[in-house]
Amino acid sequence: MERQHLLTLLQRVKTGDLSPDDAIREVEHTSFEDLGFAKLDHQRARRMGFPEVVFAEGKSDEHLLGICRAHLAAQPRLLVTRLAPERHGALADHLDGGRYNPTARTVSFGEPPGEGRGDVLVVCAGTADLPVAEEALETARIMGSRAELIADVGVAGLHRLLAHRRRLEQARVLVVVAGMEGALPSVVGGLVDKPVIAVPTSVGYGAGLGGVAALLAMLNSCAPGVTVVNIDNGFGAGYAAALINRGPQE
Amino acid sequence: MERQHLLTLLQRVKTGDLSPDDAIREVEHTSFEDLGFAKLDHQRARRMGFPEVVFAEGKSDEHLLGICRAHLAAQPRLLVTRLAPERHGALADHLDGGRYNPTARTVSFGEPPGEGRGDVLVVCAGTADLPVAEEALETARIMGSRAELIADVGVAGLHRLLAHRRRLEQARVLVVVAGMEGALPSVVGGLVDKPVIAVPTSVGYGAGLGGVAALLAMLNSCAPGVTVVNIDNGFGAGYAAALINRGPQE
Amino acid sequence: MERQHLLTLLQRVKTGDLSPDDAIREVEHTSFEDLGFAKLDHQRARRMGFPEVVFAEGKSDEHLLGICRAHLAAQPRLLVTRLAPERHGALADHLDGGRYNPTARTVSFGEPPGEGRGDVLVVCAGTADLPVAEEALETARIMGSRAELIADVGVAGLHRLLAHRRRLEQARVLVVVAGMEGALPSVVGGLVDKPVIAVPTSVGYGAGLGGVAALLAMLNSCAPGVTVVNIDNGFGAGYAAALINRGPQE
Amino acid sequence: MERQHLLTLLQRVKTGDLSPDDAIREVEHTSFEDLGFAKLDHQRARRMGFPEVVFAEGKSDEHLLGICRAHLAAQPRLLVTRLAPERHGALADHLDGGRYNPTARTVSFGEPPGEGRGDVLVVCAGTADLPVAEEALETARIMGSRAELIADVGVAGLHRLLAHRRRLEQARVLVVVAGMEGALPSVVGGLVDKPVIAVPTSVGYGAGLGGVAALLAMLNSCAPGVTVVNIDNGFGAGYAAALINRGPQE
Amino acid sequence: MERQHLLTLLQRVKTGDLSPDDAIREVEHTSFEDLGFAKLDHQRARRMGFPEVVFAEGKSDEHLLGICRAHLAAQPRLLVTRLAPERHGALADHLDGGRYNPTARTVSFGEPPGEGRGDVLVVCAGTADLPVAEEALETARIMGSRAELIADVGVAGLHRLLAHRRRLEQARVLVVVAGMEGALPSVVGGLVDKPVIAVPTSVGYGAGLGGVAALLAMLNSCAPGVTVVNIDNGFGAGYAAALINRGPQE
Amino acid sequence: MERQHLLTLLQRVKTGDLSPDDAIREVEHTSFEDLGFAKLDHQRARRMGFPEVVFAEGKSDEHLLGICRAHLAAQPRLLVTRLAPERHGALADHLDGGRYNPTARTVSFGEPPGEGRGDVLVVCAGTADLPVAEEALETARIMGSRAELIADVGVAGLHRLLAHRRRLEQARVLVVVAGMEGALPSVVGGLVDKPVIAVPTSVGYGAGLGGVAALLAMLNSCAPGVTVVNIDNGFGAGYAAALINRGPQE
Amino acid sequence: MERQHLLTLLQRVKTGDLSPDDAIREVEHTSFEDLGFAKLDHQRARRMGFPEVVFAEGKSDEHLLGICRAHLAAQPRLLVTRLAPERHGALADHLDGGRYNPTARTVSFGEPPGEGRGDVLVVCAGTADLPVAEEALETARIMGSRAELIADVGVAGLHRLLAHRRRLEQARVLVVVAGMEGALPSVVGGLVDKPVIAVPTSVGYGAGLGGVAALLAMLNSCAPGVTVVNIDNGFGAGYAAALINRGPQE
Amino acid sequence: MERQHLLTLLQRVKTGDLSPDDAIREVEHTSFEDLGFAKLDHQRARRMGFPEVVFAEGKSDEHLLGICRAHLAAQPRLLVTRLAPERHGALADHLDGGRYNPTARTVSFGEPPGEGRGDVLVVCAGTADLPVAEEALETARIMGSRAELIADVGVAGLHRLLAHRRRLEQARVLVVVAGMEGALPSVVGGLVDKPVIAVPTSVGYGAGLGGVAALLAMLNSCAPGVTVVNIDNGFGAGYAAALINRGPQE
Repeated sequence: MERQHLLTLLQRVKTGDLSPDDAIREVEHTSFEDLGFAKLDHQRARRMGFPEVVFAEGKSDEHLLGICRAHLAAQPRLLVTRLAPERHGALADHLDGGRYNPTARTVSFGEPPGEGRGDVLVVCAGTADLPVAEEALETARIMGSRAELIADVGVAGLHRLLAHRRRLEQARVLVVVAGMEGALPSVVGGLVDKPVIAVPTSVGYGAGLGGVAALLAMLNSCAPGVTVVNIDNGFGAGYAAALINRGPQE
Repeated sequence: MERQHLLTLLQRVKTGDLSPDDAIREVEHTSFEDLGFAKLDHQRARRMGFPEVVFAEGKSDEHLLGICRAHLAAQPRLLVTRLAPERHGALADHLDGGRYNPTARTVSFGEPPGEGRGDVLVVCAGTADLPVAEEALETARIMGSRAELIADVGVAGLHRLLAHRRRLEQARVLVVVAGMEGALPSVVGGLVDKPVIAVPTSVGYGAGLGGVAALLAMLNSCAPGVTVVNIDNGFGAGYAAALINRGPQE
Repeated sequence: MERQHLLTLLQRVKTGDLSPDDAIREVEHTSFEDLGFAKLDHQRARRMGFPEVVFAEGKSDEHLLGICRAHLAAQPRLLVTRLAPERHGALADHLDGGRYNPTARTVSFGEPPGEGRGDVLVVCAGTADLPVAEEALETARIMGSRAELIADVGVAGLHRLLAHRRRLEQARVLVVVAGMEGALPSVVGGLVDKPVIAVPTSVGYGAGLGGVAALLAMLNSCAPGVTVVNIDNGFGAGYAAALINRGPQE
Repeated sequence: MERQHLLTLLQRVKTGDLSPDDAIREVEHTSFEDLGFAKLDHQRARRMGFPEVVFAEGKSDEHLLGICRAHLAAQPRLLVTRLAPERHGALADHLDGGRYNPTARTVSFGEPPGEGRGDVLVVCAGTADLPVAEEALETARIMGSRAELIADVGVAGLHRLLAHRRRLEQARVLVVVAGMEGALPSVVGGLVDKPVIAVPTSVGYGAGLGGVAALLAMLNSCAPGVTVVNIDNGFGAGYAAALINRGPQE
Repeated sequence: MERQHLLTLLQRVKTGDLSPDDAIREVEHTSFEDLGFAKLDHQRARRMGFPEVVFAEGKSDEHLLGICRAHLAAQPRLLVTRLAPERHGALADHLDGGRYNPTARTVSFGEPPGEGRGDVLVVCAGTADLPVAEEALETARIMGSRAELIADVGVAGLHRLLAHRRRLEQARVLVVVAGMEGALPSVVGGLVDKPVIAVPTSVGYGAGLGGVAALLAMLNSCAPGVTVVNIDNGFGAGYAAALINRGPQE
Repeated sequence: MERQHLLTLLQRVKTGDLSPDDAIREVEHTSFEDLGFAKLDHQRARRMGFPEVVFAEGKSDEHLLGICRAHLAAQPRLLVTRLAPERHGALADHLDGGRYNPTARTVSFGEPPGEGRGDVLVVCAGTADLPVAEEALETARIMGSRAELIADVGVAGLHRLLAHRRRLEQARVLVVVAGMEGALPSVVGGLVDKPVIAVPTSVGYGAGLGGVAALLAMLNSCAPGVTVVNIDNGFGAGYAAALINRGPQE
Repeated sequence: MERQHLLTLLQRVKTGDLSPDDAIREVEHTSFEDLGFAKLDHQRARRMGFPEVVFAEGKSDEHLLGICRAHLAAQPRLLVTRLAPERHGALADHLDGGRYNPTARTVSFGEPPGEGRGDVLVVCAGTADLPVAEEALETARIMGSRAELIADVGVAGLHRLLAHRRRLEQARVLVVVAGMEGALPSVVGGLVDKPVIAVPTSVGYGAGLGGVAALLAMLNSCAPGVTVVNIDNGFGAGYAAALINRGPQE
Repeated sequence: MERQHLLTLLQRVKTGDLSPDDAIREVEHTSFEDLGFAKLDHQRARRMGFPEVVFAEGKSDEHLLGICRAHLAAQPRLLVTRLAPERHGALADHLDGGRYNPTARTVSFGEPPGEGRGDVLVVCAGTADLPVAEEALETARIMGSRAELIADVGVAGLHRLLAHRRRLEQARVLVVVAGMEGALPSVVGGLVDKPVIAVPTSVGYGAGLGGVAALLAMLNSCAPGVTVVNIDNGFGAGYAAALINRGPQE
């Protein structure tokens, strides 16, 4: 926030033109920290009660570490996603204090408040979908949700899924992760009356087209109540699930 | 439900092998009415408190009317979607008692219970997106949600959207409808901390590829918390919004 | 078959250069009737015990009727596919003796031998998939297979499908027809240990891409034993099912 | 299978509510071994007489070996697919007892019962298609089929294919493997009256689009009786061929 | 050609700066008739000995007739392509003197010189490919080539094609027309040692993608010597065949 | 602009908290007229000196006319695009005062100020590209630019283009319109040192993919200085050309 | 330029057939230096006042250095693009005198004349878009434009962008760089009345399709005045911006 | 050729059932050498006067060398294509006697007969297209054609191309190689009245889609007489050019 802007706000508070509440609101919505190569919005995280999240891929090491440091200087919770094990190995010294999950490829700093609220259930079709499913889990948890995983319940062996039917019905929101033909969200969506967030993965080959087949299947799901995120976007699914799980009054 | 199956269940209840609660549950999950060309799941609607929904496109008139009649015989609430005005004109006599919305192309039978709970806000980018937005509205309402619409607030004139900023922040869940470049959900997603369901529409031409451009944009949204449904799928978005809006205890 | 070629063959038989059996074989493999715009292979049908099949779309009325007449002059069984009701209405006088199935859009001439052998089971996901499913049924039947249909058992209401589980397990070969997300063949493939032929349909809209979404899903099925035919190709699926059903000794 | 579920079953058997046969059936259909990251369905293999199959790509070494061990502890036959030579080299010590085929990239454990039944014929268009063709061969064989290969008979040199015409006609089911323009299944399908399973390969470049050109060609085959599997999916083709080859009575 | 430019040229001829031969050449390469909405290059046709060609689709009736009249005023030979029968019916009075081929949808004015040279052979896979094949025939003929057609010799019945093997070998250049899987050019290309121009057609449905499947197949042909034109572009194939057929000395 | 917001602004002006200049600016940026189904931004047009533009396709007649009326009530200049001749015929009475260009499918109300500044040159490849080229012309002119057209100078007859070389070099900005292979912008871009806006059209068939081939070609132009708009988007090209042509001081 | 051609020109000048001005013009338009593997057009750069530009990717080291040397021998300004840091490291000795920008991956030789004219503003959405944005900056600057950068102002945090609103309005031309959903050019285009050149980047994953999602979004922008260049084509955008920025009189 | 088949032929010759000429013909068309993994058709090469050609990519070293040896044992001329420099380095000892062209990535064995007939002209747009252009050159030459190259004459600098106009007109057949927007074949096709074979290359990035943009452009060429081969298929273009160049009498 520019000094001049802040000054103006304060003068308007003084003259009674602006209430203190509205001034705080204005500050929260318009301020950010400018690193030159990045503009960090600490207030957003603060006012929403969310941690910061940094997507590591495509950023240089220098930019990545600079952004992490600036965030951690402003507040204690941070999630770094898409940090491959080799790259984490090289940067680990600069990221101390963070917990690395090598399957999810995430680093988590700080703790969510309390024990985790609500009930997010992550379900994945095959073993190869685990990295995406774990990314969703880590994201939902650091945003303060209680979250659990059921793995390897693809539709070609329905009884493995049906064995968990009651657990599925109890969840407040479900994240369903699948590659190949992407059928699992439709089947789960037909079993429950809760929001289902479908995550296609790039697991597969050939006509899987890097996850596009699963993506299209999920977008065309015959089960209503299914919404979809980008291929391999475990983070986005976990984030949306946490928003839904938080409920209206929070 | 086949007679034999029901008999077995009852015998198990009598012998104490099955509790009455579990027997009801079993009945609800396994029964349907078989019309030959269609198998209707009245229990699902009943146990979830939802209306039935019938997608009119691709069904012959005979099948469409047969399915509607069977549903209405079993329970009073029904939503018919994708019924073009000309077709509705021809079938109106057979659909009396239903309210037709020619923009949404829906027919609604029966009333949702109470005044509508929660707060679903549907936002659309342009005038040509109205049919999809109204389909979402009709769906959310008949499922029991309170739902409102803000129209024609595309990103090329941001101040039209920002004029509604407080209203956006109040909603419990938002449905954001846009064609062409599909940017509106990203902008709205950055303004609120609530779940955003993005609906791409086929509005546009050329490289819009019938809505694929907007769909891809929404799937790649840089705003977290955005999930996506199929092109022109106002129904799916309204349905998912109503599920999210209903909350955990309901 | 050209006269000269036949003469040569007979001379070789006379000189003992060719056995009568091999000569018949040669005749069967190389002869056809030349209408100028079409070359009809009556022998193929005769030696395989199959009816002739004519794809009506894209052929002029004149060509279509000419081909049908030439086939029926040579042998009594014929299947015409993709003949829309309006076009059939206009041509019906020229196609008398044929049974028209308006859902399947097929005309069948002649009867298969016997009562139908084996057990082909056609399963379809929704009411709108019926035309494709019926085309598969008609094809399998005129090729001599016993064939039945189970309709409207899409994956979003699994109990409708599971209610038919024993019937599914009894079939010798299954044709599974679905549009939208195309998940049904994967689920069926996981329930049975028989060949499953998956038929994607163009039922759906938007990201269904005219059946491409269902096609891709089926090609990426996680259930082994599933093979796939072209979008809406009920004929091809019924034909392949009949070949499989016929078994090795026939 | 959860202990509680089993207990309930046994009690129902004791009370006569469930016959011993049905109880066995129930056990077979609902039990699996849960490794946490994977849920193994040993009963499926057992009741169908099939070996287990593990797809190696996309699984971590730890998960891959854990799954193999668990399968081999339960029964002796196992097929591992898509294990590249370098990876096999690194893991060979942990996979002893298995026969590695470096062209097919498969490891086979155990022997199929008997000498191989029926007659599966695998045909491939070019030398570069051999890995996929050999994967189909290995799969069909370990499932108990007799299977043979004819290589390098692409359509640009028809006489190489026609030299094998009688052999083609003898087979009970054919797997036809081709990249580039994918024309071979149409030509073979026109020569035989048996089921043809077409396998497109990623052999080619440019407008071959990684096998999509061959895939589309095969899906549009003008020869009826041709069904298709995913690009490079030799396993799926071999599996379906073995199912078809097994016939109804088995 | 602008008057001023011509004057300059003539002055340079007069001063000896330009030879008469070079001046003629310059005139031929730079002149055209300007209709405002179109610029007609009569010299190109004249110096190459080719007829003019007008593509009718996408032009208004007024533009189409204006262009035809201007061409016919300058020279007698003209080919109009893509003129659908209904449109021809409406415009026939304005196109008198032209021969309409309703299958090819072409109107031909004037006669090629002599009896037709060389030997262009057009081969098509199915009856529905005839419009494209006939467009190629008409084009090659009006450009002065001798051209013949063999119809309905698709690869699913190879003996129909092989019956014409000697005729195929005699041609100087072949145009091979096919829809669906587009395999015919590969097979023909393997039988002859002459240039093969492949024409994909939009015949087919579903995964045929409007002719894209056939196009891709032809571009990936394993038979060398095959080149390809646009989907349904019988004109382009006939034109290129005539150029090849004309040979170097002409 | 809401009354309350305006009141606040005025009070701030009165107290000296806001200068009159800033207040005007604020008004201009935040006001719009709300029709319910549309929100009209009259200030944007006014402050930029631009006419309003209404895209007719996809809007109902009622919405279209309502928007036109509201715009014309606020200011005199208006451009309606994509109004097909038949639809214009039906609505002409309600659009009196507007000049209809049936090739461009535009209606223009009011006159641009002055004689037209700068020099926009529209160049198109073929006669069938004229509707798009004329839409660009009409747009540039009503925005106040001087604009001219050169038609039918496609790259297959280069001398037709080169005859206009000096005219091309004189333009301040060029709009180059082409379908099929879309090569013209690359050739023009190599001849001039001015900005070139390329407009792909849907003219063509088959592998033209509705203009996608031309679009891709233009995006990959080897001539620097070429930028691209959507397929058939003559309006967008004319608008951007007018912006560029206006120059910095205007 | 061939000696003979030059001789002819001079003779025409001598005879008065050609003015000296036109002769210079002719020389400038037709001469190039032929390296065998490349033909360099030094005159173009000279007469337009532009530097030479060499695209490094896809050229062998030998060709790249040969072209650079030949250009620098003819004139002092040169821009080399797409030279990755590792490759630059290996070639640096051969490129001395050039300034390497490792983010932009460009080498610049020589200085633009004067201080930079006009006002090109480059705006990018995220940190990962910086390489493309810097390539645009370097290009605009060496072509003589004044150019600045605003980074990390993606649409999910609008207040970061709106904080720069006045700066945006001052620019003469804007280059807007964004990956993922590519929404930024639409938002910027709605805020300013200047030409906006949109550059999609390949930043993103999955359904981003390597930048195609952003490209399609930008082509469908609802803000008029937006034109688009190829994915990651910072050079092309900077070049076009410099052309626009130069204005008509230059 | 199988011994039995040959015996039969000879007996038929002896009995007069087959003329010696026809028997030779039969032998030539049906014989091949079977290596197990490959079936080599030496007769085709022999009777057509062509060298053998082996595509190296996708073949194991063992298969590649085995095929080369078998060919060279049967006849002296052989062309190996797509052999990358590194791989050639490793195999060079096994390929002695062959001339390696590292740009074209070809190895040539033996000499074409005579000095090269006719006149094939290869033209390429940019320096990066040289590998494909050289592959075409090498192929045309070893097949006996005289062939030359003009490089770096892309359409953005037309005068470089026009400087070669007379040379272009002299060629009997032209191969035109271009990446990016693929416009060169259209321009060349408009300048000459000879067959033009267009070769798209994968040179470019982003929306070039690996050569698909250039491929589509060439398929949609507005210049008649242009036919197209696969992306980067210099071999196919050179082969077709040699066939066309050979003429009818050869």
